[in-house]
Amino acid sequence: MNPAEVSAAFRPKKSVALSGTAAGNTAICTVGQSGNDLHYRGYDIADLAAHCEFEEVAHLLIYGALPTSAQLAAYKARLRSLRGLPAQLKSALELLPASAHPMDVFRTGVSVLGCLKPEAEDHNESGARSIADALLATLPSMLVYWYQFARSGGKRIDVEAGGDSIAEHFLHLLHGAAPSKEWIAAMQASLILYAEHEFNASTFTARVIAGTGSDLYSSITGAIGALKGPKHGGANEVALAIQQRYASPDEAESDILRRVENREVIIGFGHPVYTIADPRNAIIRASARSLATTPEGRRLYAVAERIETTMQRAKKMFPNLDWYSAVAYHLMQIPIDLFTPLFVLARTAGWSAHVIEQRQDGKIIRPSANYVGPENLRFIPLNQRT
Amino acid sequence: MNPAEVSAAFRPKKSVALSGTAAGNTAICTVGQSGNDLHYRGYDIADLAAHCEFEEVAHLLIYGALPTSAQLAAYKARLRSLRGLPAQLKSALELLPASAHPMDVFRTGVSVLGCLKPEAEDHNESGARSIADALLATLPSMLVYWYQFARSGGKRIDVEAGGDSIAEHFLHLLHGAAPSKEWIAAMQASLILYAEHEFNASTFTARVIAGTGSDLYSSITGAIGALKGPKHGGANEVALAIQQRYASPDEAESDILRRVENREVIIGFGHPVYTIADPRNAIIRASARSLATTPEGRRLYAVAERIETTMQRAKKMFPNLDWYSAVAYHLMQIPIDLFTPLFVLARTAGWSAHVIEQRQDGKIIRPSANYVGPENLRFIPLNQRT
Repeated sequence: MNPAEVSAAFRPKKSVALSGTAAGNTAICTVGQSGNDLHYRGYDIADLAAHCEFEEVAHLLIYGALPTSAQLAAYKARLRSLRGLPAQLKSALELLPASAHPMDVFRTGVSVLGCLKPEAEDHNESGARSIADALLATLPSMLVYWYQFARSGGKRIDVEAGGDSIAEHFLHLLHGAAPSKEWIAAMQASLILYAEHEFNASTFTARVIAGTGSDLYSSITGAIGALKGPKHGGANEVALAIQQRYASPDEAESDILRRVENREVIIGFGHPVYTIADPRNAIIRASARSLATTPEGRRLYAVAERIETTMQRAKKMFPNLDWYSAVAYHLMQIPIDLFTPLFVLARTAGWSAHVIEQRQDGKIIRPSANYVGPENLRFIPLNQRT
Repeated sequence: MNPAEVSAAFRPKKSVALSGTAAGNTAICTVGQSGNDLHYRGYDIADLAAHCEFEEVAHLLIYGALPTSAQLAAYKARLRSLRGLPAQLKSALELLPASAHPMDVFRTGVSVLGCLKPEAEDHNESGARSIADALLATLPSMLVYWYQFARSGGKRIDVEAGGDSIAEHFLHLLHGAAPSKEWIAAMQASLILYAEHEFNASTFTARVIAGTGSDLYSSITGAIGALKGPKHGGANEVALAIQQRYASPDEAESDILRRVENREVIIGFGHPVYTIADPRNAIIRASARSLATTPEGRRLYAVAERIETTMQRAKKMFPNLDWYSAVAYHLMQIPIDLFTPLFVLARTAGWSAHVIEQRQDGKIIRPSANYVGPENLRFIPLNQRT
């Protein structure tokens, strides 16, 4: 979908169904309680993003507590040991064409893994956590294995090579070389910021699926499908397309003002829950700025920043996480259609935590609907219909 | 999951989250408005099941109206022309082990198809309907192709052979021979009864995914994952396991009374929406009875019927659609783990209609949650954690 199509499809805040309606209890996350804050299991996102690796935050979400140094070392070692892909999964990935959307590839890869290594029938928590860990470890392998095979002429990479952390592993596989410390730090922060966000649409999808008693792979597969939508995870791809439209900040400012006057929605701004600002914005903006070391990078950053100030002045709207994530990812030379898959990689930690929590809750989620169709139509047999 | 585990996991009516909360508008279906009725687009399910083929009902759901004779003939001819599977999809199915759950195979097959033949980016309704039709036509091919390959020693069947209708096509592929008129009629009725049911958990999953602007394959893939759960589509498999526990109606009656006294939940009875009875029960019961032509078949039917009267007397509980569907499917020699996939085949008509409707609505579905976790924990740096 191009930005204009997305803008046409996008509706403002009032069009959020179930907005403000509690669909369950959670101890995992609060979003915007003060209008501008985000907490994972009681911890402020600003602290987590400034001081943690993604693996610490994944441990917090999936296991319920921040790890000690020894626990973190053991956890990271275990995740490294899980990076390999089963042969049948590699073969399945090789069947998917280069033209496939990487989100469709992810959705398929997780589904195949669920056939090859199904969850135990009793859905015990220890087993579910192990699957969550295996997914965190193999998602970069899965994505980049397909990417290099399909789009680099059949190249079969060694998915177990490269890097101490998930952030480093992904960048190493993608670029075929060890990434800089700055890139690893930016990727860690980005994964932490994307890891969890309460009952957003993809997490809610995972919980609805889990509520029927289905398995973790089914929940994650469904969540990936939901995240793909341009009103949800797909937004960071659209944000970059907007930023790349402009040769200079001045050009961006005048064009955005014109579009705002025409009531066009600018993807990357505003949020259905935050009212004051997105607390993740300042963090990812700082990451993006630190990566803007070339003239082209500084220009892209300057355009993004000018659109931020323009939207603030003209519409009192703030950028959400997707806006500068797009800048940061582009500056790390990540292809645009891998942006949303990176969101998957991060959010799998949150999704898994929510599935485990939904199972403890034990409820099936089954709303009702307002019927607006015809009532009591008289049935007409086939041979009398005209 | 065995019946005891399911019973332990199952909760009664009050544990339905969002029960009675409208999550959107629909013109597709009403469930239980009088406590005991079901209408598809205004038509009574009793009329549809008694007089229609599944293709007429699929046309009603997906295209909005019952077809004329000429439209139905053209629609069925088109569906027959769409039965083939792409070579890469066959190869992908061949990679999935015989031990895989057929629901996981379906989830994977639909996801692969979404990589091979993606939906047009503008998600126009005509394209969405074509994909829905292609899924209805290919789901039997996909399921039985994998089933015969994985479980009959690598047999590669011709998926385009066999049968005028979807019901006949499925039975023909599965048994390798033309089914009887009685079996085709029973399968038609069953598919019609399973085709649609308002905002049930799998349909709601499809709508949440569609609400983000994602594609139809993602919605269906997620819905399959939700339907897999034993509190939803998986119930018909559990129902047969219960019925097969007993050698006679008398044995069934005394054991069920004992279990009811122990407050055990009997899968296949009761419903979160219907209060008086499930209007689909009498229809599928008649189908099941008509198929019970052998001594073993009559015994199974008699056991199911005795449990119905026992549950009515002891608990005032009525059987839902799953109870006699299990009997009917078993009498058509359908392997138990293909029961829920048949539900997928039928419900794909309803799911697709809901995705198209959700897109017209244009809303993202994003509820909130009650936070019950810790507040404002002080962050402790890694090297100080104990």
